[in-house]
Amino acid sequence: MAETVRVVVDAMGGDNAPGEIVKGAVEAVNLDPAIQVILTGRQEAVQAELAKYTYPKEQIEVVHCDEVIETAEPPVNAVRTKKQSSLVVGMNMVKHQEADAIVSAGSSGAILVGGQTIVGRIRGVERPPLAPLIPTEKGVALLIDCGANVDARPSHLVQFAQMGSIYMENVVGMKNPRVAILNIGAEEEKGNALVKDTYPLLKECPGINFIGSIEAREIPHGGADVIVCEAFAGNIVLKLYEGVASTLLAKVKEGLMSSLRSKIGALLIKPALKQTLKSFDASQYGGAPLLGCKGLVVKTHGSATAGDVRNSILQCVTFKQQGINDKIREHICKPKEG
Amino acid sequence: MAETVRVVVDAMGGDNAPGEIVKGAVEAVNLDPAIQVILTGRQEAVQAELAKYTYPKEQIEVVHCDEVIETAEPPVNAVRTKKQSSLVVGMNMVKHQEADAIVSAGSSGAILVGGQTIVGRIRGVERPPLAPLIPTEKGVALLIDCGANVDARPSHLVQFAQMGSIYMENVVGMKNPRVAILNIGAEEEKGNALVKDTYPLLKECPGINFIGSIEAREIPHGGADVIVCEAFAGNIVLKLYEGVASTLLAKVKEGLMSSLRSKIGALLIKPALKQTLKSFDASQYGGAPLLGCKGLVVKTHGSATAGDVRNSILQCVTFKQQGINDKIREHICKPKEG
Repeated sequence: MAETVRVVVDAMGGDNAPGEIVKGAVEAVNLDPAIQVILTGRQEAVQAELAKYTYPKEQIEVVHCDEVIETAEPPVNAVRTKKQSSLVVGMNMVKHQEADAIVSAGSSGAILVGGQTIVGRIRGVERPPLAPLIPTEKGVALLIDCGANVDARPSHLVQFAQMGSIYMENVVGMKNPRVAILNIGAEEEKGNALVKDTYPLLKECPGINFIGSIEAREIPHGGADVIVCEAFAGNIVLKLYEGVASTLLAKVKEGLMSSLRSKIGALLIKPALKQTLKSFDASQYGGAPLLGCKGLVVKTHGSATAGDVRNSILQCVTFKQQGINDKIREHICKPKEG
Repeated sequence: MAETVRVVVDAMGGDNAPGEIVKGAVEAVNLDPAIQVILTGRQEAVQAELAKYTYPKEQIEVVHCDEVIETAEPPVNAVRTKKQSSLVVGMNMVKHQEADAIVSAGSSGAILVGGQTIVGRIRGVERPPLAPLIPTEKGVALLIDCGANVDARPSHLVQFAQMGSIYMENVVGMKNPRVAILNIGAEEEKGNALVKDTYPLLKECPGINFIGSIEAREIPHGGADVIVCEAFAGNIVLKLYEGVASTLLAKVKEGLMSSLRSKIGALLIKPALKQTLKSFDASQYGGAPLLGCKGLVVKTHGSATAGDVRNSILQCVTFKQQGINDKIREHICKPKEG
C-alpha cells in the first residue's frame, strides 16, 4: 500500500471558501485512499459543508481555527499576529511534520511569508521561489519565480533553475526539461545586469538542460519548459498572460454577439471553441508550489473551485511520492559567484 | 498653408522593403500636401517602385545610399561603419536639420543606437525612451520604455512619465492622460528598488496625472494611458502581448477548424470577428517613437506594410505640428533624487 500523504487544506482561504475548498478535499480523498486531508478553519462551517458529501470519514480531519487572514491584510503582520488563523495553524503543522504539505487559496502574501518564516527553507536553499505553471501551445511551462521577493541575485536564479528542473521532471513528468532565462534578446550579451551575471552560471550549472535566453514572445509558443526570472519580471509575465487572454477572449465574444449572423455562427462553434481553449489552461496540474521549503506549500488562485483544490492536493501527493525535497537537498549546490 | 514637414523614410529597412515602404510614402504624400518625403536607399530599386504610382513628384525625393544595415548585424558596429547606409544617411539628415523626422522598419538596435548617437538627445533629456502604443479594451496605452537601455535610474523614469504624457496628450489626442508605474501590486510599498525609489518622485512631479501603480493584468483592460517602466520590463510586456495574442488566436482558429459544424459557424462569424479584433490594434497610430531626440525617430515594426509606413509618416506630421520637442524642452526638469 502507498505511503499516506498528509495534506493540510486551508478551508477558509479564497473567494469560494469554505464550500469549494471542502468539496475539493472530498473529491481528492475519494480518488486516492493514500491521502489524509486536514481541513483547518471554523469547525461549524466546515462540518456543515462536509455533511453534504459521502467520503471515507477517516481520511478527513477538521482542526478548528478561530481566525481567518483576509486578502487585504498586510501579510507579515497577519502571519505574526493571527496565530489561530487557518493558514498559520496549517503551516505550523507542516513545520512540525504533522503534515507533508499545505494547500491554500488565501492571501498570496501571507502564504509566501508563512512558507518562509513558519515552514522554513531547506538548508542550502537561499530563497524559495513561487513557481506557477502557465499554458503554452505545446502544453505547460514553469515560470520561476513569481513570488514576493524581488531584486534577486544570480545565485538565487541558478537555484530556481535547478529546483524548477526537478519539479518539471518529477511532478509534471517532462523528461529533460529545457531551461531558459527570460531576456530581451536571444544573444548572450543581451540583458540587464542580473541576466548577464546569471547567464554564465547557468551555462556551467550541472544537471540542468540550459538552452539560453528566451524572449517573452516565445513563452506562449512553448519555447522553454522552465523559465527562470526574478520575481518582478515573473509577476509581470504571469499577470499579463491572464490580462491579455481575458481581454482578447472578451473581444472575440463581443465579435460573436455583434450581429444575428455571427450569433448563429457562435452557436455552431461554441462546443469546439470551448474544447480548444480548455487545452490552453494549466489548472489540471494544481496550484503554484513554493519550492525549497521543508514541506510543500501550494498556492492555488483566489477564485479556486473544487477541481483546482482537488488537483492541488493530488499535486502534493506526487510531490511527496517522488521525493522532490530529497532531490532538491541532493542537487542544490551553492554556485560560484562572480 | 501648413508648414512643410520633411520626413526621411528608410526605404531599405524591414521585411517588405523597398516595395511596401515606397508605397506607404506615396500614400502619405497623396493624403497631405504639407509632407515632403525623402526616401533613402538604392536609387534604382526605389525609382522602380515609385514608377508604379501617381503622386505629386515634388513631394518625394530619393537620396541614393549604397549600403543597407541588416537586422542581424551588431547595431553599434553597423551604425559606426556603414556610413552610407539608408539608415545612417537618413539620421544624419535629421541631425543636420535637413529633415524633421525619420521613419524606419529596419533593425531596432541600429535605430536606437543611431537615434542616440547620430540624431542626439535634447539637452536635459537623460535617456531617450522607445515608446510603442499597445492596444487595450478602451483604446491604446503608451508603454514607455521598451528600448535597449536597461537598468534605468529613477530620474529616467520620471522623464519617461513627462515625455509620455506630452506625447499622449498632443499626438494621440488624449486629454490629461493617466500615468502609472508598472508594479507587482497596487500599494505604494510594493515593488523592486527602482519602483520604490521612483514612486515618490512621480507623486511630486508637476504636470503629470500620476495615478499610482499598475499591475500587468490591468494593462490590457486599459487601467492607465501612460505606463512607465524600465526597458527590460517594458520589453517583456510588449513581446508577451504579441505572443499571448497570437497563440490565443491560433487556438481559436484551431477550434473553428476542428469539426464540420464549427467550420460552418466560422464562415458566419468571420466578418464580425475580424471587425472586433481590428479594434484591438494600435497600428493606426503609427510606429514607436524614440522620444527626447533632437528630431523625431520612429521605429515601425519589421513586417511593416504600406499602411504602417503611411501612418508613421502622418504621426511625424502631428509630432512636428504640435511642437512636441518644444514642449519636451519646456517641461523636462531634472527631478530631485533621494
